[in-house]
Amino acid sequence: MSKFDLITMGEVMLRLSPQGYDRLSSCATFDKNAGGSELNVAAGAALLGIRTGIITKLPDNDLGRYIKNEIRFEGVSDDYLIYDSSDEARLGIYYYEYGAAPRKPTVVYDRRNSSFTRIRIDEIPESVYSYSRMFHTSGITLALCDNTRDTAIELIRRFKDAGAMISFDCNYRANLWGEEKARQTIYSILPYVDILFVSEETSRRMMQRKEDSLMEIMRGYVRDYPGIRYVCTTQRKVKSPKVHDFTSMIYSSETGEFYSEAPYNDIDVVDRIGSGDAYVAGALYGLLRYGDPQKALEYGDATSSTKCTITGDLPLSDLKEIDRIIRGHKAKGQADELNR
Amino acid sequence: MSKFDLITMGEVMLRLSPQGYDRLSSCATFDKNAGGSELNVAAGAALLGIRTGIITKLPDNDLGRYIKNEIRFEGVSDDYLIYDSSDEARLGIYYYEYGAAPRKPTVVYDRRNSSFTRIRIDEIPESVYSYSRMFHTSGITLALCDNTRDTAIELIRRFKDAGAMISFDCNYRANLWGEEKARQTIYSILPYVDILFVSEETSRRMMQRKEDSLMEIMRGYVRDYPGIRYVCTTQRKVKSPKVHDFTSMIYSSETGEFYSEAPYNDIDVVDRIGSGDAYVAGALYGLLRYGDPQKALEYGDATSSTKCTITGDLPLSDLKEIDRIIRGHKAKGQADELNR
Amino acid sequence: MSKFDLITMGEVMLRLSPQGYDRLSSCATFDKNAGGSELNVAAGAALLGIRTGIITKLPDNDLGRYIKNEIRFEGVSDDYLIYDSSDEARLGIYYYEYGAAPRKPTVVYDRRNSSFTRIRIDEIPESVYSYSRMFHTSGITLALCDNTRDTAIELIRRFKDAGAMISFDCNYRANLWGEEKARQTIYSILPYVDILFVSEETSRRMMQRKEDSLMEIMRGYVRDYPGIRYVCTTQRKVKSPKVHDFTSMIYSSETGEFYSEAPYNDIDVVDRIGSGDAYVAGALYGLLRYGDPQKALEYGDATSSTKCTITGDLPLSDLKEIDRIIRGHKAKGQADELNR
Amino acid sequence: MSKFDLITMGEVMLRLSPQGYDRLSSCATFDKNAGGSELNVAAGAALLGIRTGIITKLPDNDLGRYIKNEIRFEGVSDDYLIYDSSDEARLGIYYYEYGAAPRKPTVVYDRRNSSFTRIRIDEIPESVYSYSRMFHTSGITLALCDNTRDTAIELIRRFKDAGAMISFDCNYRANLWGEEKARQTIYSILPYVDILFVSEETSRRMMQRKEDSLMEIMRGYVRDYPGIRYVCTTQRKVKSPKVHDFTSMIYSSETGEFYSEAPYNDIDVVDRIGSGDAYVAGALYGLLRYGDPQKALEYGDATSSTKCTITGDLPLSDLKEIDRIIRGHKAKGQADELNR
Amino acid sequence: MSKFDLITMGEVMLRLSPQGYDRLSSCATFDKNAGGSELNVAAGAALLGIRTGIITKLPDNDLGRYIKNEIRFEGVSDDYLIYDSSDEARLGIYYYEYGAAPRKPTVVYDRRNSSFTRIRIDEIPESVYSYSRMFHTSGITLALCDNTRDTAIELIRRFKDAGAMISFDCNYRANLWGEEKARQTIYSILPYVDILFVSEETSRRMMQRKEDSLMEIMRGYVRDYPGIRYVCTTQRKVKSPKVHDFTSMIYSSETGEFYSEAPYNDIDVVDRIGSGDAYVAGALYGLLRYGDPQKALEYGDATSSTKCTITGDLPLSDLKEIDRIIRGHKAKGQADELNR
Amino acid sequence: MSKFDLITMGEVMLRLSPQGYDRLSSCATFDKNAGGSELNVAAGAALLGIRTGIITKLPDNDLGRYIKNEIRFEGVSDDYLIYDSSDEARLGIYYYEYGAAPRKPTVVYDRRNSSFTRIRIDEIPESVYSYSRMFHTSGITLALCDNTRDTAIELIRRFKDAGAMISFDCNYRANLWGEEKARQTIYSILPYVDILFVSEETSRRMMQRKEDSLMEIMRGYVRDYPGIRYVCTTQRKVKSPKVHDFTSMIYSSETGEFYSEAPYNDIDVVDRIGSGDAYVAGALYGLLRYGDPQKALEYGDATSSTKCTITGDLPLSDLKEIDRIIRGHKAKGQADELNR
Repeated sequence: MSKFDLITMGEVMLRLSPQGYDRLSSCATFDKNAGGSELNVAAGAALLGIRTGIITKLPDNDLGRYIKNEIRFEGVSDDYLIYDSSDEARLGIYYYEYGAAPRKPTVVYDRRNSSFTRIRIDEIPESVYSYSRMFHTSGITLALCDNTRDTAIELIRRFKDAGAMISFDCNYRANLWGEEKARQTIYSILPYVDILFVSEETSRRMMQRKEDSLMEIMRGYVRDYPGIRYVCTTQRKVKSPKVHDFTSMIYSSETGEFYSEAPYNDIDVVDRIGSGDAYVAGALYGLLRYGDPQKALEYGDATSSTKCTITGDLPLSDLKEIDRIIRGHKAKGQADELNR
Repeated sequence: MSKFDLITMGEVMLRLSPQGYDRLSSCATFDKNAGGSELNVAAGAALLGIRTGIITKLPDNDLGRYIKNEIRFEGVSDDYLIYDSSDEARLGIYYYEYGAAPRKPTVVYDRRNSSFTRIRIDEIPESVYSYSRMFHTSGITLALCDNTRDTAIELIRRFKDAGAMISFDCNYRANLWGEEKARQTIYSILPYVDILFVSEETSRRMMQRKEDSLMEIMRGYVRDYPGIRYVCTTQRKVKSPKVHDFTSMIYSSETGEFYSEAPYNDIDVVDRIGSGDAYVAGALYGLLRYGDPQKALEYGDATSSTKCTITGDLPLSDLKEIDRIIRGHKAKGQADELNR
Repeated sequence: MSKFDLITMGEVMLRLSPQGYDRLSSCATFDKNAGGSELNVAAGAALLGIRTGIITKLPDNDLGRYIKNEIRFEGVSDDYLIYDSSDEARLGIYYYEYGAAPRKPTVVYDRRNSSFTRIRIDEIPESVYSYSRMFHTSGITLALCDNTRDTAIELIRRFKDAGAMISFDCNYRANLWGEEKARQTIYSILPYVDILFVSEETSRRMMQRKEDSLMEIMRGYVRDYPGIRYVCTTQRKVKSPKVHDFTSMIYSSETGEFYSEAPYNDIDVVDRIGSGDAYVAGALYGLLRYGDPQKALEYGDATSSTKCTITGDLPLSDLKEIDRIIRGHKAKGQADELNR
Repeated sequence: MSKFDLITMGEVMLRLSPQGYDRLSSCATFDKNAGGSELNVAAGAALLGIRTGIITKLPDNDLGRYIKNEIRFEGVSDDYLIYDSSDEARLGIYYYEYGAAPRKPTVVYDRRNSSFTRIRIDEIPESVYSYSRMFHTSGITLALCDNTRDTAIELIRRFKDAGAMISFDCNYRANLWGEEKARQTIYSILPYVDILFVSEETSRRMMQRKEDSLMEIMRGYVRDYPGIRYVCTTQRKVKSPKVHDFTSMIYSSETGEFYSEAPYNDIDVVDRIGSGDAYVAGALYGLLRYGDPQKALEYGDATSSTKCTITGDLPLSDLKEIDRIIRGHKAKGQADELNR
Repeated sequence: MSKFDLITMGEVMLRLSPQGYDRLSSCATFDKNAGGSELNVAAGAALLGIRTGIITKLPDNDLGRYIKNEIRFEGVSDDYLIYDSSDEARLGIYYYEYGAAPRKPTVVYDRRNSSFTRIRIDEIPESVYSYSRMFHTSGITLALCDNTRDTAIELIRRFKDAGAMISFDCNYRANLWGEEKARQTIYSILPYVDILFVSEETSRRMMQRKEDSLMEIMRGYVRDYPGIRYVCTTQRKVKSPKVHDFTSMIYSSETGEFYSEAPYNDIDVVDRIGSGDAYVAGALYGLLRYGDPQKALEYGDATSSTKCTITGDLPLSDLKEIDRIIRGHKAKGQADELNR
Repeated sequence: MSKFDLITMGEVMLRLSPQGYDRLSSCATFDKNAGGSELNVAAGAALLGIRTGIITKLPDNDLGRYIKNEIRFEGVSDDYLIYDSSDEARLGIYYYEYGAAPRKPTVVYDRRNSSFTRIRIDEIPESVYSYSRMFHTSGITLALCDNTRDTAIELIRRFKDAGAMISFDCNYRANLWGEEKARQTIYSILPYVDILFVSEETSRRMMQRKEDSLMEIMRGYVRDYPGIRYVCTTQRKVKSPKVHDFTSMIYSSETGEFYSEAPYNDIDVVDRIGSGDAYVAGALYGLLRYGDPQKALEYGDATSSTKCTITGDLPLSDLKEIDRIIRGHKAKGQADELNR
């Protein structure tokens, strides 16, 4: 039996947010959190009960230790944390200000030159490749700098060689790289990918998929890259910054079928950040635990919808809660107002 | 003249809640409040201006003193507090986590073996029975344990004998006792009851009323138990965890009429807990002060709707505010945005 | 070139508010802010990038210094602050409790006998009159007491004589003065006014305008007082205490045209106080910077809508943010969820 | 049996303090408390277990209600609160900033024209005079304005006539009145006083006692005003703003003896305000409960020393705690570090 | 190689404390922490870098999950946590109020009937006994109830049989059991113990050691129970609640020598709770890592002194910090004011 | 008359600190402040009443705006702020954790590549040189990078040429540069310096002054660099992290005399950071306002001692407070406990 079900790789940042509707330019205190797309995925899946770890590089100082503590608090293994004791060691930061219509949430990044950008393949123990059933990373890691890109691609290769499934979330961020560069890089790794997360908008624009319908786009990926077993697409309707509807669709190349369910309507959005990653966490949990795309979809939708109701990047829902949410979502009749 | 208008009897607990959307499993601090159905009723009525007290048993330690202080803060008399100095003395606790759709609010109880469960009839001064115009308790007290049930029933008998009106709120909690036991116990006390609070759902399920319509159910109670003078039923429509509509109906056996009013629509629900008790408080105020079911209904609806906008179990609205809310509810035209 | 673009005159108060849904009668802490209609205007305009100052009188104690610091924090000049070292020196206070339907926000004033009510014209340096392109005050200053009224009117005269434009916001407050007195006083200053801010309701009731339509009312002011160059009226639809729609209309006597735009719909109202002043700030910015009523309207609408999403009286939006809000408001298609 | 053991009369204010070492001129929030010399006395005595009430006048608004709630929270009766519904109604305020050497604590008063200054003798129910065993007020009430002085003196006369003991604390405040006026006023009431609290410094300076030693001064008061039964003087040594030593001396005219005990050394001073009033509370408790000056002294010293360790004006110690403190103070040997 | 260096067994509680000098009977919020003697030991040792785990039983609810998360946050393994899903499941609580002289810190326990008291030996996986180099528990676990005592003793036997070293801290608590019972129980396990932590006072009183000097007492344990390899005694001088001196002495039966060092003087005591456990953590680290009693003593003293400066039961110091503290303690000359 | 009395130049950072004794590795929130040696000087002097400004470079984002707002809040001009709109724009950060013996305060820097390190001489308006009576910078600015060093030296030259006095604080930081480089650089600018701030330790070690006594060292600087008019040296005695004594000495080349006063003893040290800069602020105020070294010394000592009692880098004391502190320091007899 493998030691881990899922290993992810990516940057973990310090997130600093004013409380409530306070503003970056005038607030007196910051709430302090850890966050980062690949950590969010590992944490969400760990909370559901599978064994996960993260490969990242942290400064060897009190901020790095804070991140380590939070990683453990979330149930993720700290076995593959690498510490940077150099003079340049630093933790990337992002500042997050909540929005209220017509004022949007605002993110200010200060992540350049972070310790993670100097991660090296030889710092990662050889043993990791055979220890995990699955490896996951995202387009953010490919975009950060040439070094993180090369390291991530090398990791994908080595995990693939060792027999792990490869999960990849396109997660396109226009502020990190251009469409051209993103497209070339991502297409270059698709041959290795088993599970692909990509939004309709990213498919159409950055990935330049020319198919008419979303379903054809999803099938198109599998046609072009037959190694892809699942294509997952989330569907979010932003009714207002504080009210979303959410569901998703999964295409399985094995069954040739599309999986979907009724959307979660009127989600009370408290904090949108990380809900895409929570979807990935839930979906990967469903696939790793049940190998069932319908289960993957249901866990993904529930985990993502629930994350929206929680402050911070990181999910805080265990399996008991997510199962209760799924049961509530499926129930037709009157439900209790409270969990007692 | 009686010294008190209303004496209630029930458990008072410490309520611990994370702030905002924080979670029980990760929050750094708890907001600390006092709560308990029968205290909520006494406090709500006291704030409206009548003289109320509560019979309960508290540990003789700093937590018990905190509860005493809060009881006084709310304007309720501490004359009938009983202190438990035994080694087993403890204050019941409940943890409350706010919800956000699709995540429901969560309650975790830790109330077993509290000092209140060991209250004894001989600890309560004899004089109390003749000092109050009305006595109120609820199904929660009957459900907690055999001792609290027996003590509450004995209190009902003694207050009744001394000429006080008896008010009773069914307040059925499936996590405290089964339907069968609840039904038998509650039917056994209905002969003593003057004012009955019971929801349509509880009437149909736990109380197994077989009448077709809500109105027939309400009349049915009076038919079977002719001592009942008023049957009160609240009607809540949960549009979302944060938006409710609310109104109620009262049936008077004396006039043989039903009393109602247009609902409070689109209540901004901040904290739902205790709003049923606030309804009882308002309704009893109306009956004690005016002896008028329509007034009872209006005060009940306004007090309950307003409680929903306040954090904590306990209402914080005085008569001035509730009268203003009632006027606003009745006003048709344009109203001011602010109370200046 | 003038040293200032805009000088305002009015009382600045200490604002004390419970946090979140806490109540004045039970909260443990107060949030502390500065506020006052004319400061709000000066601050909003300063944040957009023009040079503003305020004439007011503050106690020469730590509270007065707090207000001075906040005035500077907002980018407003403290050149014209007058300090009161007398034994009677005090800072006016208002307490503000947020509302939740059906409970309205509540304001409790404690502003009597504040240092500002004893401001004297001879305390204001002579030089100020020629240093500013525009002077602004509001009906609140006229209403506070005879002394502030007389001082404000004298300031209007002197600024007018020195060639500054005069801006005036009727800002009628029934709790400060009666309609009769307000009407007479305000009509007596209209001959000096270049830019008039007045709501439809105030025009119809207090100002007793008899015209049928809002447009006719606006034209009516210019007909009766031909010196008025712009009449500005805001249009707010209170869908719920937490959701408003907002837009405005401006009439220019020069072009004889009305300016308007599509409303900001479904504003997430966090704190309504000061949003009228924010409108004035934006509109005056538009006039001072571009001399263009359409620009004035757009800046006014955006600044006011955005202020509603911020706690405290004072706006906290700079030009970059307001320009982004305006672009977002005009954009038809899909917009990003976040500012990254 | 009287209904009350002790009735006091004086102004109750809102106290606003920055947290920790924050400053009035820059802090973001205020801690909110109630305070006032005579309330502090009533509250301290009530917490020890005797029945106390306070005569004061409060604005009929949310701030007044807050004070009422706090008065009840402390266990003091609200039977004699008078509400001011006039337009001038206001609650006096004082701002308190903690110090750290060499920076002293700072108080900024804003108490002029408070509702209390307009209290009238005819607003106080006639019955109060015969309901209490003792009446207490202080020099602050005499100093506030002519009206409060006259009302307080009339209360002293009426309570004395009704047979109550009169307790008076000189509490000289140079910022409220001059020495000459204070001296004349206070000497004019000494004929009514049974229990006199006066510091050595006040005796020597403001009261112009010419005796050599403190003991002679104390005996001198009794010689000149034979109705005085007890003269109480506190002795505080300020080793640093955060470390005090404290003890007191009581002279009994009946026994002709002086009572004293070893000082409380190295008190951790958290908040000095109200510790003099806590001494009065403890001493009056000792006299009312035991009629024993040595007990009075021990309760006074313990209550005052303990108050210094608590934030806010109001004591928060019950009899159990004070008895434990007294036992600990008398114990010679090793004591436990904790109360378990 | 063993999987763990140290496994401990004991109850973990929720700790609730008012902030700063606030009081249990009036505070508005509680700080929330995890704590318990044997967790404190495991956490302190884990932070220094060795692999530790804890055997305990937690309710299967959100509070239990909070404790699990904190256990992981501290770097301790959650492999041996047992979850209680019964209706009686509850987490023990203790309330902690900070003191300020002459007011002592106060602890209120509410730990009866916690899930831990129902731990069963058969719930603990068999494999644990051979997985760890050392096992540690304390007198608190023996005192809680017969079941925890029996389970702990059985664990001691099994770990001993499997070859692990046994560490035991007497930790006598008079509020949990009597001296007679404690003495008999503890003497019955001494034959199994390798490392004994016992204070001089406990040795003399509860353990009734009759030797004259502390050194003779320490040697006496080894003489009577030759299996004991190290006897460790801490020496604390409470100069004031906020200033302590601290050092310790260790006797090694192997070398027959006593180990000691100069005390840490004038420790700024922020929170005393858990500093004894921190000593055990440091000492066990020294023994496990270096097998050197002098190292054990130095790590114990430094970890304990540093814990005193940190709020909460749990230490938060890593090896880097403790090594820096030790260097600073040994350095004679001038040291920097700051760690930069 | 010059527009400014004092212009400083240096980096301004965001300071993030856990509250109270919380730790970087576990705290839930950060207090947010602005800080930086040369801003601290400008702010301290501005609060005393002189006109100051700062030359620095800030990112053109919400964090940069926060710093600008704080600069204005403190009364410092924002006329010479330069905004960095490049992709590399960032605000330097430092994290500060308070200490408690034996645990020292800890600083973690994250200031590399901040916008300030890319400041260019041509971004600073030419007019500034003639607008100020004095220019001040420190060794930190020289140490940050070659560019800030060269820019600072060029500024010193241009201000000197324009007739301004040059003030320089050696402020040696071993973590920023080596002793050799520091020595060469600082000696190279001494020919331009009018007022030199240097500690005895820095003089002996880094500056390698070989004179025997501190007085000879101070005279030695003037002998070697006759342009130096004042040499200022602070003398701090760290009795414990929380208790310091502080005084200073100034040598005037004009009078050839040394100026000193009795130390401030037993300062309650709340936050040590920035107290050296506060000394500079007070001393420069004394020189600029009175041209009197004794006044400079008294203002420097009082401002520095008082800063120690305030959290954050920036002083918050105005002239009224500092004058009161100086009077209190000089007063021999009994002083009041409070400022009323």
